[in-house]
Amino acid sequence: MRRAICPGSFDPCTNGHLDVFSRAAEMADEVIVAVLINKTKSSLFTVAERIEMLQEVVAPLPNVKIDSFHGLLVDYCRERQAQVIVKGLRAVSDFDYELQMAQMNYRLSRLETVFISTNPLYGYLSSSLVKEIATYGGDVAGLVPDLVLERLLEKISGTIRA
Amino acid sequence: MRRAICPGSFDPCTNGHLDVFSRAAEMADEVIVAVLINKTKSSLFTVAERIEMLQEVVAPLPNVKIDSFHGLLVDYCRERQAQVIVKGLRAVSDFDYELQMAQMNYRLSRLETVFISTNPLYGYLSSSLVKEIATYGGDVAGLVPDLVLERLLEKISGTIRA
Amino acid sequence: MRRAICPGSFDPCTNGHLDVFSRAAEMADEVIVAVLINKTKSSLFTVAERIEMLQEVVAPLPNVKIDSFHGLLVDYCRERQAQVIVKGLRAVSDFDYELQMAQMNYRLSRLETVFISTNPLYGYLSSSLVKEIATYGGDVAGLVPDLVLERLLEKISGTIRA
Amino acid sequence: MRRAICPGSFDPCTNGHLDVFSRAAEMADEVIVAVLINKTKSSLFTVAERIEMLQEVVAPLPNVKIDSFHGLLVDYCRERQAQVIVKGLRAVSDFDYELQMAQMNYRLSRLETVFISTNPLYGYLSSSLVKEIATYGGDVAGLVPDLVLERLLEKISGTIRA
Amino acid sequence: MRRAICPGSFDPCTNGHLDVFSRAAEMADEVIVAVLINKTKSSLFTVAERIEMLQEVVAPLPNVKIDSFHGLLVDYCRERQAQVIVKGLRAVSDFDYELQMAQMNYRLSRLETVFISTNPLYGYLSSSLVKEIATYGGDVAGLVPDLVLERLLEKISGTIRA
Amino acid sequence: MRRAICPGSFDPCTNGHLDVFSRAAEMADEVIVAVLINKTKSSLFTVAERIEMLQEVVAPLPNVKIDSFHGLLVDYCRERQAQVIVKGLRAVSDFDYELQMAQMNYRLSRLETVFISTNPLYGYLSSSLVKEIATYGGDVAGLVPDLVLERLLEKISGTIRA
Repeated sequence: MRRAICPGSFDPCTNGHLDVFSRAAEMADEVIVAVLINKTKSSLFTVAERIEMLQEVVAPLPNVKIDSFHGLLVDYCRERQAQVIVKGLRAVSDFDYELQMAQMNYRLSRLETVFISTNPLYGYLSSSLVKEIATYGGDVAGLVPDLVLERLLEKISGTIRA
Repeated sequence: MRRAICPGSFDPCTNGHLDVFSRAAEMADEVIVAVLINKTKSSLFTVAERIEMLQEVVAPLPNVKIDSFHGLLVDYCRERQAQVIVKGLRAVSDFDYELQMAQMNYRLSRLETVFISTNPLYGYLSSSLVKEIATYGGDVAGLVPDLVLERLLEKISGTIRA
Repeated sequence: MRRAICPGSFDPCTNGHLDVFSRAAEMADEVIVAVLINKTKSSLFTVAERIEMLQEVVAPLPNVKIDSFHGLLVDYCRERQAQVIVKGLRAVSDFDYELQMAQMNYRLSRLETVFISTNPLYGYLSSSLVKEIATYGGDVAGLVPDLVLERLLEKISGTIRA
Repeated sequence: MRRAICPGSFDPCTNGHLDVFSRAAEMADEVIVAVLINKTKSSLFTVAERIEMLQEVVAPLPNVKIDSFHGLLVDYCRERQAQVIVKGLRAVSDFDYELQMAQMNYRLSRLETVFISTNPLYGYLSSSLVKEIATYGGDVAGLVPDLVLERLLEKISGTIRA
Repeated sequence: MRRAICPGSFDPCTNGHLDVFSRAAEMADEVIVAVLINKTKSSLFTVAERIEMLQEVVAPLPNVKIDSFHGLLVDYCRERQAQVIVKGLRAVSDFDYELQMAQMNYRLSRLETVFISTNPLYGYLSSSLVKEIATYGGDVAGLVPDLVLERLLEKISGTIRA
Repeated sequence: MRRAICPGSFDPCTNGHLDVFSRAAEMADEVIVAVLINKTKSSLFTVAERIEMLQEVVAPLPNVKIDSFHGLLVDYCRERQAQVIVKGLRAVSDFDYELQMAQMNYRLSRLETVFISTNPLYGYLSSSLVKEIATYGGDVAGLVPDLVLERLLEKISGTIRA
């Protein structure tokens, strides 16, 4: 596996995402974490902010790069000459949707998707749940990398002040 | 991904298995298809017969080797210096069990399992279903490689004669 | 839908099975309830006993007939010129297995399977659960037709005496 | 089964839908494909456009008619004197929701729902996925009937121009 | 189990909810049914109306109280000194999401969630389905308590007049 | 919740079981861990051995008692005047079967079953997997209580010598 893509919104990235990046980095020569630019979906962090946080988070992983894309994932992978998408699976409801996408992407351009079983400790983690808890003052330390925690709290207090 | 293991009973191997082998061979430098030797479970083909059929089936895939093992998969993988198990996922009921095994294997020795979404055409295929259909005279051509089909029919007619 | 088949072991038939028969009888011109003869699986009632009970149970449904078969269901359906199999679905775990069988049967001979959502009242019913409860003296009245209840109790007291 | 209803949005209809229509047409004397008019949900094609495409698509199936409805499906079925709804099931996540609707519709007016296992080749197909891929210039030929493909491309280039 | 919380929107409460309340009341010394105040989600009934209906509905259950909360459920439970959340499970799709929430709540503050298997008769019931059916003139008697039925019909006719 | 029952085979008990016992002990005044005596199923440890290990394992939990039973769980619970069964849920495949049993037990004698979401760390644990790993010399420390580990290794080495 020469080059693998980890696509997602990462708004913000969690320790569950980081677990997937590290495990993908063990398997592929090069891993590209690719932030999906989706103008029709509102987000807490801008794409630039998300990329910046991801770059710091994956700094200890030398073969992981950060990038962004819009449009079809199959087109982006072709352009980057990546053969494989790597995804973490948490639960059965993930599986059903992800299997559908994987089969469609394989049909569209023989793009392969491999699924990693995530660390069970992160099975209940999602970016949206983390944001919801932090917004109401809940403690999300240990659920996201420290530098994400800091910016998440700043962002939320700024949002509340605004 | 330098060396990946595809473990299974392969009694006999089907076109669904072959699909997984070919896709694993695209991703890893070397793929070892490893037949599990399980003396407590009865089988139609001997381990030797299964290995022989697999060798012919994967002949066109230069980086795929056939082997057998008994005991724990994690021990076998350590011995063969393989870092990754590759499995095809067909349905949700597969997923639940396989995820449990994957998490246990990761805990036992950081052995990684990656799941490939199988070709939907083979989603309903299993060795046991193929044997059952063939036993009652049903047509399994197209479900197994041709050379497997031939030996399956011989084996079954021999079993009935015996 | 001219002729539909409801295959099964029916060891013994439950009110859940009867619910499926009645609903199939509303949809098809003729319904054949077909008892699978499986010599490798032990059963509480003989095939003859099961057929006799079924005949009494479906007596009020004029377009339902009882029959038995062995071998492949697709062969039996072709022989009886039936185009459709009717199955009740109770739970997700049923669904996964039944979908696999349905897709295989469709591939083998274009035999169609239709699934009926069973009455939620019978969602937790199965022949094996009914037998287990009755064996330990639990009350299964209301779970099986009255005439089945009577013979089930006779059979179990006979088994215990034996 | 005299008259069966295949309800849906069909925005636009895919080869998966067409597979369900053809199989329903084999089982019922008459099949009505009924477009749900839902004013609160935005759509790519108008109801009139969807009906026109469906009429061309089912032209080779003499016992399939196209219609539209709003309000409750049970009321529409009663009005059209249809006894049965036919639905294609693709995945487990479909099943859970559809079973809930089926049990509610049965309770509301004894309206029966039968589920067909779709062709595994179309398991990953949905109207929304087709629209998303086409919008980004992906190739959806083979996923929708040819006449739908043509209008989908026109519609999307028109939307982009607008 | 001294004090248990049944959280939800209850817009409006159904006979399925009432079934959960009664069963929780058998197990805990005190049950608090807590209406989640969510200003970003539109509702048919105001929080005050929902509380009033719930109070009438649970009047025969002496150890069940009605309350409302906003913010994080874990904070509300700590404030009310409740150790346990009680939830009814209807289907597998419920389970996946609820298990994720339960594990997060346990991590956040050792808050325990227990799941009750609902009466299969109410497995297909949800507030949103009840509202949809009633809006189109369908009969929801038997799905909600009588006093809820009355106000639901008033509310809907008022909405239509408005 | 005055008295709750945790039924099972516990051959042997794992840290996942212990997690369920401790959490049940927080919720109920008294918890009875009840070993099912099933003469038709072979086991590694005798019922007496399993009871002895359980007694040592739950020694720090003053309101947890160990017992054994045969026959129907509903009869045992009635005899012990227990109103509630407590079960840990690990995965979706557990859920389907357990929900069926829970609904049957409720119907048989209004016996309530509550499900606890297990610690995700133990989601992949089962007695049979632990036995299989230990048999092949794998390391199961941390998966079972220390005293169970010791006897498991003794038992297995004895089995191999025998």
